[in-house]
Amino acid sequence: MNNYTKILLEEHEMPTQWYNIIPDLPEPPPPPLHPGTREVATADDLAPLFPKALIEQEMSAERYIDIPGPVLDVYRLWRPSPLYRARNLEKMLDTPAKIFFKYEGVSPAGSHKPNTAVPQVYYNALEGVKKLTTETGAGQWGSSLSFACAQFGLSCEVWQVAASFRAKPYRRTMMEIWGGKVYPSPSDRTEFGRSLLAQNPDHPGSLGIAISEAVSEAAADPDTRYALGSVLNHVLLHQTIIGEEALLQLAKVGETPDVLVGCTGGGSNFGGLAFPFLREKLAGRMNPTIRCVEPAACPTLTRGQYRYDFGDTAGLTPLMKMHTLGHDFIPDTIHAGGLRYHGMAPLVSHVYELGLAEAIAIPQMECFDAAVKFARCEGIVPAPEPTHAIAAAVREALACKESGEEKVILTALCGHGHLDLAAYDSYLHGTMSDTDVTEAEIAAAMATIPQ
Amino acid sequence: MNNYTKILLEEHEMPTQWYNIIPDLPEPPPPPLHPGTREVATADDLAPLFPKALIEQEMSAERYIDIPGPVLDVYRLWRPSPLYRARNLEKMLDTPAKIFFKYEGVSPAGSHKPNTAVPQVYYNALEGVKKLTTETGAGQWGSSLSFACAQFGLSCEVWQVAASFRAKPYRRTMMEIWGGKVYPSPSDRTEFGRSLLAQNPDHPGSLGIAISEAVSEAAADPDTRYALGSVLNHVLLHQTIIGEEALLQLAKVGETPDVLVGCTGGGSNFGGLAFPFLREKLAGRMNPTIRCVEPAACPTLTRGQYRYDFGDTAGLTPLMKMHTLGHDFIPDTIHAGGLRYHGMAPLVSHVYELGLAEAIAIPQMECFDAAVKFARCEGIVPAPEPTHAIAAAVREALACKESGEEKVILTALCGHGHLDLAAYDSYLHGTMSDTDVTEAEIAAAMATIPQ
Repeated sequence: MNNYTKILLEEHEMPTQWYNIIPDLPEPPPPPLHPGTREVATADDLAPLFPKALIEQEMSAERYIDIPGPVLDVYRLWRPSPLYRARNLEKMLDTPAKIFFKYEGVSPAGSHKPNTAVPQVYYNALEGVKKLTTETGAGQWGSSLSFACAQFGLSCEVWQVAASFRAKPYRRTMMEIWGGKVYPSPSDRTEFGRSLLAQNPDHPGSLGIAISEAVSEAAADPDTRYALGSVLNHVLLHQTIIGEEALLQLAKVGETPDVLVGCTGGGSNFGGLAFPFLREKLAGRMNPTIRCVEPAACPTLTRGQYRYDFGDTAGLTPLMKMHTLGHDFIPDTIHAGGLRYHGMAPLVSHVYELGLAEAIAIPQMECFDAAVKFARCEGIVPAPEPTHAIAAAVREALACKESGEEKVILTALCGHGHLDLAAYDSYLHGTMSDTDVTEAEIAAAMATIPQ
Repeated sequence: MNNYTKILLEEHEMPTQWYNIIPDLPEPPPPPLHPGTREVATADDLAPLFPKALIEQEMSAERYIDIPGPVLDVYRLWRPSPLYRARNLEKMLDTPAKIFFKYEGVSPAGSHKPNTAVPQVYYNALEGVKKLTTETGAGQWGSSLSFACAQFGLSCEVWQVAASFRAKPYRRTMMEIWGGKVYPSPSDRTEFGRSLLAQNPDHPGSLGIAISEAVSEAAADPDTRYALGSVLNHVLLHQTIIGEEALLQLAKVGETPDVLVGCTGGGSNFGGLAFPFLREKLAGRMNPTIRCVEPAACPTLTRGQYRYDFGDTAGLTPLMKMHTLGHDFIPDTIHAGGLRYHGMAPLVSHVYELGLAEAIAIPQMECFDAAVKFARCEGIVPAPEPTHAIAAAVREALACKESGEEKVILTALCGHGHLDLAAYDSYLHGTMSDTDVTEAEIAAAMATIPQ
């Protein structure tokens, strides 16, 4: 046991329930509001977009929800995922700290996203839905949903931000390998898309536009629904399998974390790792510091405001109480595309507001510096998003070197960087830089939030 | 046990010895010859290029060789690798056969190559070597060696075929992340390279040229050695950990293979999987059919001749008795770059010549057709090389469907295709085709082999 590198679980040890943190919180999170009436949104409001089972999970007060057998069967293609001890990195940093990372890059799509794509597709299939639509930026979420649709025989249509569609063809190819249909957004398939193309045939698109196209296609067809890859309660719920597995794995080696750090974009990777540990903390069984790490270019928690805002740029979604920079905020084009979201999952925002989690922001040069060190030590090349988690773990480990504390640090490496090597090329060859967000930029975007 | 998808080994179950098949063969393989004297090559002939420990392994008559502790420590970053049962593929093919695949794409470099890169670097480090040179085509081998050099603190210099260096920058980036220096070949760093650039400043390069540059750099510096990623006995030896693990994993579920198929380029992935099972077959403990699968565009075993030839295009290496299409043979640019080698590992050739293994050749369209089916069923996107192994497994499974036989099929998925998505794009969008090798092409290349 002394010389382990990986801590594995057998398939039969894989958790069979997701964990819903809401009943364990000292107070419930503020509910979403209907964008027109400003009344609390109802299940009926969401029914054109999501299947009943997912709407129930979104609003559930149950502490544990069984993972259906067919979902467990697909999870077994890559789960349980390994927990690693980063011994070489510890040695290189000369720290007394122990660094553990839960690695989600072993999934077919190379990230944590299939953890929710699979159940989302399953529940849709169960209710007779034939097709799912979604949006994607670089393609992590679109490829995960395409993979999951292939598993259950659903059609999958993905609106990919046109600039990414053109500049980064490889994730598109991945979606197509799994049978997904990929359209550049804006597309000529929706009225909204056509109106934008009429103004500018070379429109670069945006996530907000792609959401509008995917949502309008789903709403128009009774056999089609829409799927979202982060932010919502049911998405974070599905991701808790990450933290539940990590708890079992740390127990196998007799460790409990003193510090847990996770990168936050929409919040699902962070929530998935942190919530099971937060349950243990609230129950007094351990006492880890829990820390969100966001990019300095999109500092939602550290510099945004906690208020009701739209989830999308066009203002079509329910209003959600969350930390936001304003739904018109356009972050700089940092390489961590998955962290470029103006808001934060309402559940993560609520937990942060309750003082149950901290937050820091790290600029991208420090993140890639840490990631290259990590890759040379541990072999794995991280995706740009978890470079933030690694940089935060390195900061903590170096603080332990100063203080002499033998802290146990836990983080999640939520994906590999095999399809993001251009970002590393930019770092290694000196064409990467840090950007700063001015107060004026934030204030301007905040001004567009409905009062 | 009934519903398993993956069969895992604990770290402490990882084999601690490599298996050398030579003492178990009915007769020893013909030795390599010095290219000048045509005498049997000696250890001294190889000393300028390789460390003593590897030369000893190359010529060893020991059945088992201990894997050094520091090599096991690095192996633990990704080993033991998983053995999967391809249940979804079986269902889709409606076959009574059981299909197992050993997955080597979990290594940091994404293929089986680090299994030999790590010990090669270790033994060089032990003998005080400071720098390793090598050649690489698309970059699988170069990235594996860069990763291994980072683990033991050696410098790594890689000559990459100039056409790949320019067209496929991402594996180069991967090498650089791990600290490797990458030069396009021909380069201005060697006399041979400069002479070629003088003739053509835009020279596209070739593997043969890159080998010559890497070898000449190593031979000129007493602190530098050269490393090769396939073909040689010691490389196949290191890869036997694949088959040794697979034996243990199949035993856990009470299965023995009826058919074993592996793709063959230089022969190290095939030998690594097959030799431990061949040992069991020779000892009468099981009786699998063992089958090599090669690309129709480079049909070394099925259409080449068994005779002494050079390992490289320039004719600098020792002469090896092997199946060859002639060292001047230039295969069509199929996507499986790792299988475009004019010869075959002398050990694999010898085993084939003894009738202990069969061989078939499959055209690339059938391979990618099988790979896309596989990806939709099992999630993993295979590298172009093991698409050949998968296509052969699919052929066998469909034959079982015809005959009703419940055969156990074992193959190796020796790498993932995350950095080869352009090949899939070409397949999915109808720009891929099959090419044929004419007898005249083979005869012309064979004519250049020294008599």
